[in-house]
Amino acid sequence: MVDLRSASTDTPFERVWGTIGVVGVGLIGGSLAASIRQMDSGCRIIGFAPDETAREALALGLVDELAGAIADLAAESDLIVLAAPVLQMPAVLREVAPAVRAHCVIMDCASTKQSVIAAARLALGSQFSRFVPAHPIAGSERYGPSAARVGLYKGARVILCPQPETDPDALAKVQTLWRQLGSRVSELDATEHDRLYAAVSHWPHAVAFALSGALAHSDLSEAALRAAGAGLKDTTRIAASSAALWAEILLDNRVEALRAAQEFQAQIDLLTEALRKGDRNALEQAFGIASRWRAQLEDPFASNGPT
Amino acid sequence: MVDLRSASTDTPFERVWGTIGVVGVGLIGGSLAASIRQMDSGCRIIGFAPDETAREALALGLVDELAGAIADLAAESDLIVLAAPVLQMPAVLREVAPAVRAHCVIMDCASTKQSVIAAARLALGSQFSRFVPAHPIAGSERYGPSAARVGLYKGARVILCPQPETDPDALAKVQTLWRQLGSRVSELDATEHDRLYAAVSHWPHAVAFALSGALAHSDLSEAALRAAGAGLKDTTRIAASSAALWAEILLDNRVEALRAAQEFQAQIDLLTEALRKGDRNALEQAFGIASRWRAQLEDPFASNGPT
Repeated sequence: MVDLRSASTDTPFERVWGTIGVVGVGLIGGSLAASIRQMDSGCRIIGFAPDETAREALALGLVDELAGAIADLAAESDLIVLAAPVLQMPAVLREVAPAVRAHCVIMDCASTKQSVIAAARLALGSQFSRFVPAHPIAGSERYGPSAARVGLYKGARVILCPQPETDPDALAKVQTLWRQLGSRVSELDATEHDRLYAAVSHWPHAVAFALSGALAHSDLSEAALRAAGAGLKDTTRIAASSAALWAEILLDNRVEALRAAQEFQAQIDLLTEALRKGDRNALEQAFGIASRWRAQLEDPFASNGPT
Repeated sequence: MVDLRSASTDTPFERVWGTIGVVGVGLIGGSLAASIRQMDSGCRIIGFAPDETAREALALGLVDELAGAIADLAAESDLIVLAAPVLQMPAVLREVAPAVRAHCVIMDCASTKQSVIAAARLALGSQFSRFVPAHPIAGSERYGPSAARVGLYKGARVILCPQPETDPDALAKVQTLWRQLGSRVSELDATEHDRLYAAVSHWPHAVAFALSGALAHSDLSEAALRAAGAGLKDTTRIAASSAALWAEILLDNRVEALRAAQEFQAQIDLLTEALRKGDRNALEQAFGIASRWRAQLEDPFASNGPT
C-alpha cells in the first residue's frame, strides 16, 4: 500500500530559482533558506514571519531580506515555500493567491497534508497546479530561527504528495531542489501520509507529552528530574517540542491521531491488565513483539529507511 | 522528601577485595566485572550465569573464571555481586546464604529494591547486616555479556538503600567501590526508590513497549519502519530492551508501576478528550506544562542530575 522508495540523491547543482520567498523562518523554513543560501549564493531569499521571528532570522543570516507582507513576498518570488504553522496555512494561502506570479511554484512543508492540500486547492484556484505538497521528515524538539541550520535536510526523507492537477514541471523542480540539498525524495498518497505520520510521529508526540506531563504533575516532579536516566530522556525528548506547534499538528490530523491513540490504548490496557493480574507470560509476550519490531527500526537492511 | 545529593567521585584506587563473585554477567554484572578487572588486575573475579551466558562472558574476558554453582562462588568471595534478573533474586540468595564467608559483603544491582531487601533479610539471617542494596542507573536497551563494557558506570548515578541493620563498614566499602569506578553514589529510602523508579524508568519502559507494540500490530507496521524519524526512534529506543527482564522488573514493582500507569492514563485521557473536542487551549496548555518540565531535564543547573 505505502511505497516509500527513494530515488538517488546525487543531483548536481544547477540554478533554477532567482528569488525564493519563505513564509515562516523557524526550524523548517529557516533551515531550508539557510541551506539554499549556502548552496547558491546567487539566489535571493525573502523571508516573512511575525516581527520578532523575522528579525531574528535576518540577524542570523538565514534570509537575505524581509518582506513587509506575504503578498509582497509572493509578488517577487519564483518559488514560495510555506513553512508556517499548519493551522495558519489557509490564511497564508489566501494572502499568497492574488499576488503569485504566473510561473511561480508553491510548496508547503507541513507535517500534515490533506488539510493543506484542500486549503491550497480552494485558495489557489487554477494556480493549484503549481502547488507541490511536501513534508520533510527532519524535525527536532528545538524550534524557531535559532534552531535552524544548514544541512538539516541532508540525508533526510522528504515526502511529496502530488495531486492529479500537479504540473509535472513544478513537481520535477521541487524534487530537484530537495535532492540538491541531499534529501531522499519519496512520493506518497496524502491520505496514507496523514495516517502513517499520525502513527509514527503525531501520536507519539502526544505520548511523550503525556509521560512528561504525568511527571510534571506528580509530587515526584523534582526528584524525577534528578533521578532520570538516559531511558526517560530519550523517551521524552520530543516532549520538549513547541506546545503550540504540536497542538496544531495533532488537531489538524485529529481523526488519524485518535485512531493511533486507540491502537496505543489497546496496548496500554493489555499491559496494565497483565500487570494487575501478575500475568508474566502476557507481559513478556507483548514486550517481545514490541521489542522485535523496535529492533528492526535500527537495522538499515530491515528498514531501508532514514536514520 | 527524596534526597539524591551525590558525594565526590574522585576516590583514589586502593585494593579492598581479593576475590569478587558476580552472579549474572550480562550488561550490569558483566560491565561491573570488566570495569573492576581493568581498575585492579590483581583482583580475581569469578562469574556465574546460565551456561551459554557464562561461557560468553569468559570468552569476552569479563571474568577471570567461572563457578560451577552459586554456592562455590559464594564460598570463595570477599564480595558477592548479585546481578541476576530480579525475580531470581530470592532463589539466588537462598543458594548464597549457607556458603557465604563471615567477612563477605553482598551487594545486589537490581532495579527494584524492596523485594530484594525482603528476600535478602529472609535468606541471609544474621548475615543480612553485610548486605548492601544497590541500583546503578546505567541501563541500556542492549543486554547480555556482549553489551557489557568497561566504563558503563563512569559518571552514572548509583543509589544505595542501606537498612537499619546495615554494617557501616560494608556500606563504606561498597560506596568506595562505586566511587572508584567513577560513579556518583546517593542514598535513598527503598520505598521511595521503588516509587521514584516506577515513575521515571519502569513505567516509561511499558509506555515505549506499548508504542512499539501498537505499531507492530498495525497494518502500517512495515511502512512505519521506513517512515519513522528520529522522534519515534528516541521515544521507542528502550522498547528494544529485553522483554523477559522488563516483565520481571515491572511485575516486581507492580504496585508502584500501576500507580505511575494511573497518573499517565490521566494525562492520556486529558489529551484524547481535548483532541476529540478540538480543544486547542486544553491541548496547548497540557503540552506546555509537559514541555517546560522536560526542558529542565536537560538543564544541569535545574536538575543537578546525571546526564
